[in-house]
Amino acid sequence: MSGRPAWEAYLEEHNDRHVEELFDLLRIPSISSLPEHKGDVRRAAEWVADALRTVGVPTVEIMPSAGNPVVYGEWTVDPAKPTALIYGHYDVQPADPLDLWETPPFEPTIRDGKIYARGSSDDKGNLFVPIKALEALVRTNSTGQPPINLKFTIEGEEEVGSPNLPAFVREHKELLACDVVLCADGGMYSVDTPSIAVSSKGIAGCQVNVRTADTDLHSGQYGAAVPNAVQAAVQLAATLHTHDGSVAVHGFYDTVRDLTESDRAEIRAVPHHPQEYLADIGATDFWGEPDYTAIERAFARPTLDLNGFWGGFQGQGTKTVTPCEAHFKITCRLVKDQEPSEILDLIEAHIAAHTPRGATVTVERIAGAARPFGIRRDHPMLVAAEQSLADLYDRDPYVIRMGGTLPVAETYQTELGADMVFYSFSMPGSRAHAPNESFMLREGFLMGRKAYCALLERLGA
Amino acid sequence: MSGRPAWEAYLEEHNDRHVEELFDLLRIPSISSLPEHKGDVRRAAEWVADALRTVGVPTVEIMPSAGNPVVYGEWTVDPAKPTALIYGHYDVQPADPLDLWETPPFEPTIRDGKIYARGSSDDKGNLFVPIKALEALVRTNSTGQPPINLKFTIEGEEEVGSPNLPAFVREHKELLACDVVLCADGGMYSVDTPSIAVSSKGIAGCQVNVRTADTDLHSGQYGAAVPNAVQAAVQLAATLHTHDGSVAVHGFYDTVRDLTESDRAEIRAVPHHPQEYLADIGATDFWGEPDYTAIERAFARPTLDLNGFWGGFQGQGTKTVTPCEAHFKITCRLVKDQEPSEILDLIEAHIAAHTPRGATVTVERIAGAARPFGIRRDHPMLVAAEQSLADLYDRDPYVIRMGGTLPVAETYQTELGADMVFYSFSMPGSRAHAPNESFMLREGFLMGRKAYCALLERLGA
Repeated sequence: MSGRPAWEAYLEEHNDRHVEELFDLLRIPSISSLPEHKGDVRRAAEWVADALRTVGVPTVEIMPSAGNPVVYGEWTVDPAKPTALIYGHYDVQPADPLDLWETPPFEPTIRDGKIYARGSSDDKGNLFVPIKALEALVRTNSTGQPPINLKFTIEGEEEVGSPNLPAFVREHKELLACDVVLCADGGMYSVDTPSIAVSSKGIAGCQVNVRTADTDLHSGQYGAAVPNAVQAAVQLAATLHTHDGSVAVHGFYDTVRDLTESDRAEIRAVPHHPQEYLADIGATDFWGEPDYTAIERAFARPTLDLNGFWGGFQGQGTKTVTPCEAHFKITCRLVKDQEPSEILDLIEAHIAAHTPRGATVTVERIAGAARPFGIRRDHPMLVAAEQSLADLYDRDPYVIRMGGTLPVAETYQTELGADMVFYSFSMPGSRAHAPNESFMLREGFLMGRKAYCALLERLGA
Repeated sequence: MSGRPAWEAYLEEHNDRHVEELFDLLRIPSISSLPEHKGDVRRAAEWVADALRTVGVPTVEIMPSAGNPVVYGEWTVDPAKPTALIYGHYDVQPADPLDLWETPPFEPTIRDGKIYARGSSDDKGNLFVPIKALEALVRTNSTGQPPINLKFTIEGEEEVGSPNLPAFVREHKELLACDVVLCADGGMYSVDTPSIAVSSKGIAGCQVNVRTADTDLHSGQYGAAVPNAVQAAVQLAATLHTHDGSVAVHGFYDTVRDLTESDRAEIRAVPHHPQEYLADIGATDFWGEPDYTAIERAFARPTLDLNGFWGGFQGQGTKTVTPCEAHFKITCRLVKDQEPSEILDLIEAHIAAHTPRGATVTVERIAGAARPFGIRRDHPMLVAAEQSLADLYDRDPYVIRMGGTLPVAETYQTELGADMVFYSFSMPGSRAHAPNESFMLREGFLMGRKAYCALLERLGA
């Protein structure tokens, strides 16, 4: 590449407009887990389809799935060139607790160089990056076309575990055929240095329901005599971990391969500043399996997380009840060779074995389990992505492993035989899934668009 | 007493009107723990004052306290006669969860011989009993006056622990001077056989707040690395009991006197049908200190109850957060020689000693702690009450001990030197504090009014 590419100037020049367009998408509360937002989810799909059409993608369709639709786009320029399928999702997490947001979650606001809004990082900002990169490429190159063949599948159920995407991909194998999937969902490990992810964790979840009586009881009359559902649930939930933070479910680690010395060396090479890491989230200490560093655990060890717990009186002051029911939610993050359904079997067996006397316990599996994913290190598309980032940032990317889950990575691998390359630009501290989620304007949104331009050009060369 | 007393015929004849009047009181949602019901609480006080005036009580006043007002009534007939002060409360518990009520909590409904409404037993039905008994006496006797001197203190903060009644009683010692306090709050042990309570438990409560970070975190990014507040709170709450159901807080039982063989024999004499007891509340087993029977525990052993627990995501489906905060509420029911503030000191020390790494924990004491109460067995007023019940039911009352708390019992004892005799007519299964609270029409409301007529006549003889 000689001199400054034309798309780079274009992106700088049109940056404000691109930000304004993104704001429109961020204003749509497309929360897929809440039925009352069904209409908003649909609106977000239509918005993304329009955005693809506006850029010039010749085939754009809102395709039905068994759940929310998938926005499909296709721009085939030359069968001899590689085909990249870009993945993202237009749905977002719920925004509660609302009172912790500094500005309303669906009124995007810029502060200190960041866009604050629910979905700004996860994933509306990230999915918009390749669309606007494509705009920059086709408006500035001689052909008016992308350098390689492109397909888009922007789905609307990622935040509820993509329950219908596997069937969708299976049913449309030929349509979606490609050489690589570029994942426009996820992030970089640090703001200054790029990173390339080589794995993501799987997920399996359930809700545990504990019942001890027909109705809440007067604690004076009954508290001393019969079981208390909150007490029973607390007792039960406490058995899921040992006191040192390891998962105590029998068999949980059985299929997990331990980290090799070379894995550990690679993880150590990624910079980690424990005090900054903790200060950034307001935590005071680490927690988890004692034989691994916090980063080893976050990158490559499986977990069992209590995502929520509720039972009995939660109001102000006091209500002297002996609660009759309590509930808690679990999700596990899984690593290579852990099978979600087997992990849920183990949890069910553990719960059954540890159910306190007088409690009736049911386990509901939550839809959206996903297997872990990994890509081989010498995959040519991975190497191309690494080189593009190295050129752009003028330094080698860190090799990282994702603690989060992209259920679709394994789906595309299985159904299309296409590996996924993670190429997305959230930054640490973006607070995805939490109040005050943000997306960095230059380091995320602008750099991301440049990185997509660079990679697509490289793949087309 | 020769033949059928005149008040008995009067009560039968006027029963329907008395029920209708009670319905008016039950329609007022006088929930003292919810600030938005402040006006309803006031309305209930005014309603009770009017009810006293209607019966003919010459002095009736709504007296301010530092919180909700106390309805005071006085009818002095002869300084040579004894004075009984009647205690009750016009406030009620919250009605949630509303969806579990078969009929709305503040629309009283009769089904199967019971009045269903929040407060029907606790305490509006019970407080109305002596008022309407007084009506029957003064409308049917020759003097048109009660047989002894009567005072009423019907308060409005019992369901939040009567925080302001002690000061009120202290400030009005002379006005409230009496020989006995008759407690029109509480119930009988069985429907067929009367019972007389000789003690009630004390109470002390707190809320425990656990924090591990500034904000909820993405469980994929952080779940493996840092503490989870729900996890930490579960771990902490689980340390409060041993696995057999005893309280594990160091020193909790230190001042408790063990039950004597004669205590245990007296408790055994009270009928208890374990399977019916459990079936009535939909429980499948007992739980608690293994060295005591369920009834021994309910009558006479202290407890630590988890009244509520909440943290993280509680909605439908899944939200993969690592929660940053969690909370639980504790109340302890205390027995003789346990001092509420000392018990809370012990709990705070336990919490501090068991706080998991990386968690910041605060303990908020909940207002309304109360000492336990007991009355000596040969107290003449207790004996008079026992004899009145024995005559009316034609069988000896059971001697019982209350698992619940009447904070005021100890207040009246300390401030006025007057012991409290529990004389009230809720029945087992009345579901006080729970959905579908009820009050039995004949066995509770009617029998209660007869019992008050009989006792007041006996005290005046």
